Amino acid sequence: MKITALAGGVGGARFLRGLRDALAARGLGPMSATPATVTVIGNTGDDITLFGLRVCPDLDTVLYTLGGGVNEEQGWGRADEGHLLQGELAAYGVEPQWFGLGDRDLGTHVARSLWLGQGASLSEVTARLAARWGLPESGFTLRPMTDTPVETHVVIPDDDGTGSRAVHFQEWWVRLRAAVAAQRFVVVGMDRATPAPGVLEAIRTADVVLLPPSNPVVSIGVILGVPGVRDALRGTPAPVVGVSPLVGGRPVRGHADACLRAIGVESSSAAVAGLYADFLDGWLVDSSDSDGSYADRVAVQRRPLLMSSPPATAELAGAALDLALSLRGRGARAVG
Amino acid sequence: MKITALAGGVGGARFLRGLRDALAARGLGPMSATPATVTVIGNTGDDITLFGLRVCPDLDTVLYTLGGGVNEEQGWGRADEGHLLQGELAAYGVEPQWFGLGDRDLGTHVARSLWLGQGASLSEVTARLAARWGLPESGFTLRPMTDTPVETHVVIPDDDGTGSRAVHFQEWWVRLRAAVAAQRFVVVGMDRATPAPGVLEAIRTADVVLLPPSNPVVSIGVILGVPGVRDALRGTPAPVVGVSPLVGGRPVRGHADACLRAIGVESSSAAVAGLYADFLDGWLVDSSDSDGSYADRVAVQRRPLLMSSPPATAELAGAALDLALSLRGRGARAVG
Repeated sequence: MKITALAGGVGGARFLRGLRDALAARGLGPMSATPATVTVIGNTGDDITLFGLRVCPDLDTVLYTLGGGVNEEQGWGRADEGHLLQGELAAYGVEPQWFGLGDRDLGTHVARSLWLGQGASLSEVTARLAARWGLPESGFTLRPMTDTPVETHVVIPDDDGTGSRAVHFQEWWVRLRAAVAAQRFVVVGMDRATPAPGVLEAIRTADVVLLPPSNPVVSIGVILGVPGVRDALRGTPAPVVGVSPLVGGRPVRGHADACLRAIGVESSSAAVAGLYADFLDGWLVDSSDSDGSYADRVAVQRRPLLMSSPPATAELAGAALDLALSLRGRGARAVG
Repeated sequence: MKITALAGGVGGARFLRGLRDALAARGLGPMSATPATVTVIGNTGDDITLFGLRVCPDLDTVLYTLGGGVNEEQGWGRADEGHLLQGELAAYGVEPQWFGLGDRDLGTHVARSLWLGQGASLSEVTARLAARWGLPESGFTLRPMTDTPVETHVVIPDDDGTGSRAVHFQEWWVRLRAAVAAQRFVVVGMDRATPAPGVLEAIRTADVVLLPPSNPVVSIGVILGVPGVRDALRGTPAPVVGVSPLVGGRPVRGHADACLRAIGVESSSAAVAGLYADFLDGWLVDSSDSDGSYADRVAVQRRPLLMSSPPATAELAGAALDLALSLRGRGARAVG
């Protein structure tokens, strides 16, 4: 079975780890007779160059989480992390200081930047990093959505309130904690971006496509903006099943509500499903979720969505997988 | 008083710290009525690009030592150092692993590489780093010998012994521990190098020029190879006084003997003085040193050279300074 998933950072990464557990529990693990393979298409809109080093927060969170190196408490970054290097940069007056990069984490960015500088594509670099984290052995392939450098910028009011200015997504998310109302998002570089090798094929040839509970605007939404991705989802014969990122209309973590507000969409599971209406077949919403208006073709299932523990997460991922399998053969959507 | 010193790494850096103490003891410290200023011309032949980062070992050793951040025991690198980042690079299979870079030290290299990438010259970068380490406040200016990237390579026998190959100086020094006989040194890039801003002027306008007990071949010798430097030393009206790097014909640390052997020079204080014969006025040799043949003009003084403690080092630096002051007015050498 070939599974393809679109993923952002923490929520996506945890869901994917649950999916790996769920596959193993169903006898589809890497050592089984019929191992499933999972292609993860990762968001690179959060990518940022800091201190001359290329940082890919979402890709790294997926790698660290699947590879057992993540800081479990915060959900991103490395366990047993040190913070000497950035302290030195601060002593030298190097800005910015609002983005915390640990010493182990910086090892990833130094390696990535070195390889990119040697001419490797982000896809190639990501494959090398993934090898260290054991993804191939567990049947997982992580592909950046594009090898073209893109960066999500956020248009916010300028300081005197008379106009607006754009800041990097990370500055809005981390430094401003998304507390300044976003007017809109602009993915710089997307106009010349092409899908990374294997991305469209992974969607077209999948048996199942899953949307983890990642941010629908700045994670999944940005991936959908890569030319060809949305069309591939509309055209794939695979059922597309998503997990709502909202519980009771609010994000479990992160600032999905602030992002939805910026694009004029209500913070509800039904409204998020509406963003995917042209390709969504199944949708998992939280038990506490209020009813909403869904497209006819969407099979909505209620269940607890809180990924409160690895077993709970595996159950959630298994439920998404099972729903998708039950929807197989419903046929390809018309390509719009 | 304007003092100019040519310096390599550990020996040079310790001597310079002693010089700072000696100046303070003579009422020439930065807070005095007649503060001395010291311009250090640092060797950059050891520089190397590792993991995409530009590393300047000798400059950094001077900065860390004068700034109080050095690992006193090993004489280079940072105190209270961590080693997480390079462990990650090893896990990713990034080579080489034989050059140890700590997490704090890497902060310097990341800052330097960032600024160089933004178009700053090595001189400008070094000034920014020096500001953090308090050099300006103590009257010290560290100048790289050149802003042109140069790298000392070492020609050694190849593995099957039939020919020869060149390795970076650091590989020979650190990985091979200078145990493989060097056939010769080649300073790659020196043919297009020019002295960094202020270097020649610092020699020409100095009241005193000092040569710390740095490696005469790969530190002082490389600096002397920068076009114009040797001529400036020959022409300066300032007395030039050096400290032998050998005690009893052997280097206190490092592999000066192996370097001398490679250029066909005997490992003795007299032979080292011979390398500087065209501009040397005074020469400090160790009490244990055997007699040698010196040029007529060189005032040789015997005393303990071991920099066994900061006070002993300050006394040595003070002795070099005093000898130089006693030789003032002997007039400029003929420029050859």
